[in-house]
Amino acid sequence: MTRYKLTVSYRGGAYAGWQRQPNGLAVQQVIEQALSDLVGTEVAIHGAGRTDAGVHARGQVAHLELAEPFPPRGLLHGTNHRLPEDVRLTAAQRMPDGFHARKHAAGKEYSYRLVRTEVTSPLDAPFAVAVPRTLDLPAIARAATALPGRHDFTAFALAGGAHTQPWRRIESARVTEEGEAVVVRVVGDGFLRGMVRSLVGTLLEVGTGKRTPEAFAALLAGRPRSEAGPTAPPQGLVLERVFYPPEWWPLAGS
Amino acid sequence: MTRYKLTVSYRGGAYAGWQRQPNGLAVQQVIEQALSDLVGTEVAIHGAGRTDAGVHARGQVAHLELAEPFPPRGLLHGTNHRLPEDVRLTAAQRMPDGFHARKHAAGKEYSYRLVRTEVTSPLDAPFAVAVPRTLDLPAIARAATALPGRHDFTAFALAGGAHTQPWRRIESARVTEEGEAVVVRVVGDGFLRGMVRSLVGTLLEVGTGKRTPEAFAALLAGRPRSEAGPTAPPQGLVLERVFYPPEWWPLAGS
Repeated sequence: MTRYKLTVSYRGGAYAGWQRQPNGLAVQQVIEQALSDLVGTEVAIHGAGRTDAGVHARGQVAHLELAEPFPPRGLLHGTNHRLPEDVRLTAAQRMPDGFHARKHAAGKEYSYRLVRTEVTSPLDAPFAVAVPRTLDLPAIARAATALPGRHDFTAFALAGGAHTQPWRRIESARVTEEGEAVVVRVVGDGFLRGMVRSLVGTLLEVGTGKRTPEAFAALLAGRPRSEAGPTAPPQGLVLERVFYPPEWWPLAGS
Repeated sequence: MTRYKLTVSYRGGAYAGWQRQPNGLAVQQVIEQALSDLVGTEVAIHGAGRTDAGVHARGQVAHLELAEPFPPRGLLHGTNHRLPEDVRLTAAQRMPDGFHARKHAAGKEYSYRLVRTEVTSPLDAPFAVAVPRTLDLPAIARAATALPGRHDFTAFALAGGAHTQPWRRIESARVTEEGEAVVVRVVGDGFLRGMVRSLVGTLLEVGTGKRTPEAFAALLAGRPRSEAGPTAPPQGLVLERVFYPPEWWPLAGS
């Protein structure tokens, strides 16, 4: 058996999320279909984690195993040729035996894009969420400084997640201005279901003066979900990257 | 009669361009339809200039005249309510009598977005064009320094433009890196049909070593179209802004 790592980018708007499911088309499913078409046998892929309906990815990762070795560049371009235009493999690489996209992931980076305009430009709308022009960015940035470290994120977990414990470690949380947009970027060792979107929804309450940065920080001590703010809409969220430790980097020359 | 200025943003992918025409749906047409629905009479709008099929806009401008005054905010939101999701008015403002979106335009800014990846992410693909990873950016930036000033752009004019003379003044031409993307931004007093796209197509030949920055500069002396490079595809191009002199700024409080 030969093992491969796929890096996957998609616009999530038309999909019921990453994971195969009975109701609605999943990104995993269209990739498995394209791969199966290409190699001529049933292929299953295993993602680094789920993304919810409508959420995008620039660097989702999945692994697969093939009985017969297949040239990685053939896998890349042959699969892309069979995929709809809103899903693309951006890399296909040979991996050491045993590589597991979810179990070996050491961290992930998400971005969330907000635009401060009364009417959202159709160039931004598919990948961003409109927020008030008067948003207090320094307050949001101050609140976000509470995020790095290990916290109990119960206040930011959507029901239906598969997690067994609510502690996660955040490496960094940055709030940057890019023209009229505000981008929140969070890197952590793992994320509960809906965590980035409810962090953003609650940070927006800080930005509109409904909540202080200190009250935001207090939620990180395992407060109940009901005390945090709403879950921000999916279209602003992008899974940017999944990080792996060097022992699980691709084989040379692949 | 009351005069209004509309600022318009659209994804051009589904349209035959800005200007109403017999074959294919134009952006102008869907806006005129939405406005006519809203105000209850036939409404014609007049754009600052055309954009070709597939080209986007963040800040196209058009003017219109109404027999009965209509509150600008009502015009803005009422029209947006009736538009498809890929077209939006981002502003509607009352203007002094006689304002003309095309005749009074003093300048325009265009951007062209390139991404240096083997496979283009679906998050970039609708608004960017893939280019080789090895592109020589310093050479492109050097060539672009020849652009500011007044030149005969015959080498960069597509057939079918409505211009009577090929001289245009460029204020600035900047080449910036934004992550994996390269963005070319050009500000000028006016542009011939296809001019930005053929400038970009020719700059890409500089970036791949097919043409020197000096050979690029020499084209600005009125060389024939056949000596310049190809016209870059439409989806990378955005009409960012149309500039007007202060005497044609919107009326206070509108």
